[in-house]
Amino acid sequence: MATEKDSTVDETEIKQQIDNFVKAFREKDVDLMMSLFAPDMISFDIIPPLQYAGSDAYRKVWQETFALFQDPLEIEIRDLHLRSDKEVAFSYCFLRLNATIIDGHKINYWERLTCCFQKINNKWLIVHEHVSLPADLKTGKAVMNLTP
Amino acid sequence: MATEKDSTVDETEIKQQIDNFVKAFREKDVDLMMSLFAPDMISFDIIPPLQYAGSDAYRKVWQETFALFQDPLEIEIRDLHLRSDKEVAFSYCFLRLNATIIDGHKINYWERLTCCFQKINNKWLIVHEHVSLPADLKTGKAVMNLTP
Repeated sequence: MATEKDSTVDETEIKQQIDNFVKAFREKDVDLMMSLFAPDMISFDIIPPLQYAGSDAYRKVWQETFALFQDPLEIEIRDLHLRSDKEVAFSYCFLRLNATIIDGHKINYWERLTCCFQKINNKWLIVHEHVSLPADLKTGKAVMNLTP
Repeated sequence: MATEKDSTVDETEIKQQIDNFVKAFREKDVDLMMSLFAPDMISFDIIPPLQYAGSDAYRKVWQETFALFQDPLEIEIRDLHLRSDKEVAFSYCFLRLNATIIDGHKINYWERLTCCFQKINNKWLIVHEHVSLPADLKTGKAVMNLTP
């Protein structure tokens, strides 16, 4: 069983990975972003399809996403929760994306981000990620005007 | 550290909880459904708002959801992945909801379901759940016609 000391070290390392996620998103750093994911990761991303399987496929998503935005890209994390064990952990939080698309259109919304981690070769990697907006099932619309 | 035997027992227990989730949904059994969740759970649900915090608030969501549907309610789970440690685990899968609303309108779509578990008093409970549809960010619509 993990000691309290291990647990603190693990939580610090996982928080560092989430900081790296924000940094990679803000700086459009595909290599840093992909260093956070396990090769056989599965993402339930904010955009279709239902899933992206494998880090090679997911790298392309980040490349295309980063190409959409002008600089600067503002990212904010709020209400981060984290639970970790010896080799399995998960986190969830809200993430705000405030940015200008290449065509000049501005976006500014909060999404939900769940990350599921596994310690692989002594490094906490995201093996599953789930990012979403709530949906209004009556109108069929994604709801982009909510604040935590 | 968990032994291999523990790990098999834990995985069996978590799978049983997911089976109970499907059974509770299909049979509109609010008590069985809520028995799966920790009191301080947080759901990032398919519908707004961004989160439901606490099992009392979430019980109302299930009561309202179940009241929407005629019988029978068809639920199917596909591509279940699961990772567990001594006290922390997570699962993710696709869930198909095929049902008729009270007003006669039919729905039939696949959603994404991530469950994050903690072993509390020797029982695997969902402390965080994330359910969603992907969103087409160009049209602003939730995408409900995807299949795994």
